[in-house]
Amino acid sequence: MTADRGEPARVVWAIDLGGTNTKLGVVSADGRILAQAAFPTRPPRGGDDWANEAAAALRGLAQQARVAGIHALGIGAPGPLSVRQGVLTNPLPNLPGWQGYPICAALTARLGAPARLDNDANVAALAEHWLGAGRGVDNLIVLTLGTGIGSGIIAEGRLLHGFSDNAGELGHCSINYRGPRCVCGNRGCIELYASTDALVRRYRTNRRRAGRPLPPRADITPYAIYRAAQAGEAAAQETFAQTGRFLGMAIASFVHAFNPELVVLAGGVAQAAEFMLAATREVVFDRIYPDHKVGLRIEASPLGEAMGLLGAARLALTAP
Amino acid sequence: MTADRGEPARVVWAIDLGGTNTKLGVVSADGRILAQAAFPTRPPRGGDDWANEAAAALRGLAQQARVAGIHALGIGAPGPLSVRQGVLTNPLPNLPGWQGYPICAALTARLGAPARLDNDANVAALAEHWLGAGRGVDNLIVLTLGTGIGSGIIAEGRLLHGFSDNAGELGHCSINYRGPRCVCGNRGCIELYASTDALVRRYRTNRRRAGRPLPPRADITPYAIYRAAQAGEAAAQETFAQTGRFLGMAIASFVHAFNPELVVLAGGVAQAAEFMLAATREVVFDRIYPDHKVGLRIEASPLGEAMGLLGAARLALTAP
Repeated sequence: MTADRGEPARVVWAIDLGGTNTKLGVVSADGRILAQAAFPTRPPRGGDDWANEAAAALRGLAQQARVAGIHALGIGAPGPLSVRQGVLTNPLPNLPGWQGYPICAALTARLGAPARLDNDANVAALAEHWLGAGRGVDNLIVLTLGTGIGSGIIAEGRLLHGFSDNAGELGHCSINYRGPRCVCGNRGCIELYASTDALVRRYRTNRRRAGRPLPPRADITPYAIYRAAQAGEAAAQETFAQTGRFLGMAIASFVHAFNPELVVLAGGVAQAAEFMLAATREVVFDRIYPDHKVGLRIEASPLGEAMGLLGAARLALTAP
Repeated sequence: MTADRGEPARVVWAIDLGGTNTKLGVVSADGRILAQAAFPTRPPRGGDDWANEAAAALRGLAQQARVAGIHALGIGAPGPLSVRQGVLTNPLPNLPGWQGYPICAALTARLGAPARLDNDANVAALAEHWLGAGRGVDNLIVLTLGTGIGSGIIAEGRLLHGFSDNAGELGHCSINYRGPRCVCGNRGCIELYASTDALVRRYRTNRRRAGRPLPPRADITPYAIYRAAQAGEAAAQETFAQTGRFLGMAIASFVHAFNPELVVLAGGVAQAAEFMLAATREVVFDRIYPDHKVGLRIEASPLGEAMGLLGAARLALTAP
């Protein structure tokens, strides 16, 4: 790995591409973000227009950080994508119109640096493995909890990609074969029980059951529910505990499948881990083989919003 | 890998250890079983007594095959076990009293050859990858269908072992979070819906629904149901189709998790694959993302009963 050649001063570019915002950074080989910026992705425009803005922003960040000669770029992006080809194959619904966009080639042409691409959940797993809860842990699963549920799986120190770079869609593993149909085609996906939509729906039910009036629909955001939980509202706290229990039911199966040492809850919803983790752990440890319990930990990500940039940087730093 | 050093005449010992029978063989580097034997495992006796018999039998097979200087042994055995330590950690309920038995050290001491151990489902995956449905396929899942459901997972060409060698318990992934409690602790495990017990139960129900008298309980074996299906009995055929559909529901999630190119149905129940595969494929392809469908195949194992010995031999042949 290039990062281990004894070049402590090595610095890379990193992009955390989302459907709403693009975050960019200049990151050192020891994981310091030396400069960063963000701009709206505005996916209605074409990929090339976006790439022009991204390349200009990255060059500006290099100047700002006073670093010359950056020669590697890492990109985390919504899947499905092809790691091997460096192409966004089918990044719907996040990036409509970008199907087949050769993002790596486009940025390499503009920056003169080789680019590596992986999906945002895999990049999150790299970040956790490098600087987060997974330091020194070679078998771990990172679940990114948000509008959807993504996952990155590191097995024996290596990201699991599968046949066509689509491994790790753990959000679309079913916990209920008769459950509601999901966009993926499956029924009863854990994403349907533990996404932000489910959280809001469950909170409304809990408020009603508690006989408390409902706030206007637009005011019931995951963050508002989190603040209510922090303020001690039972309905909000129970909402996160229920979500944590559903996650636990899925994680029990993931533990049997992958035998990880660590499962990390990351992403927006994991901010509320303090209200979920106890419930998640209880369900998981109730539902797995004794041999799978040995050494197993379930933790919240400590990395926060920097996770995406750090993981993308790690991708560039560990390029073969 | 030692097997690739250009030693076409290389030959290894193989053991397929089951709770009922122990199969042993002498296998060439090109996958021919040069000699084989079997004896009852009789687990009430201690491991050392068994190891004496196994070592004597392996020496006899080497003489029979007229091969001198065998210096590697592969063992497939029921888990949980420790691959790294070569120890049967907790092989219940198959081998009661053998907990912690250092099977590799015991056989190495008796045979003067290094021994490698892995669990029977992992060994099945090695066999499929080497000589079966998985030749040339580097991302595959092998499900061994029998009294229980085991699995071996090969990801990017390597067996997935996990943190403590207990990865691949796909039989204990749930398809129903409110389902019946399984011995493993989980609820609604696919094993509860597609094991031989479930098959027999489902056949009794189907016979009753068809208004046909039930045979004596002892006569309803999976093999008898298979023969009935072959003879054209609708209740028997539907029994396998239902089992195939349940397997499909689980496999859909496994495909999202691992993105394999191939899923192989192996083990005793897979003999009846002709009555299951169409149903399994239909459910899987109905329940997965379009990107996961590309190139995906679901097949029955072509290896039959030789699978265990061949996989154990492969373990020895690919020793680092």
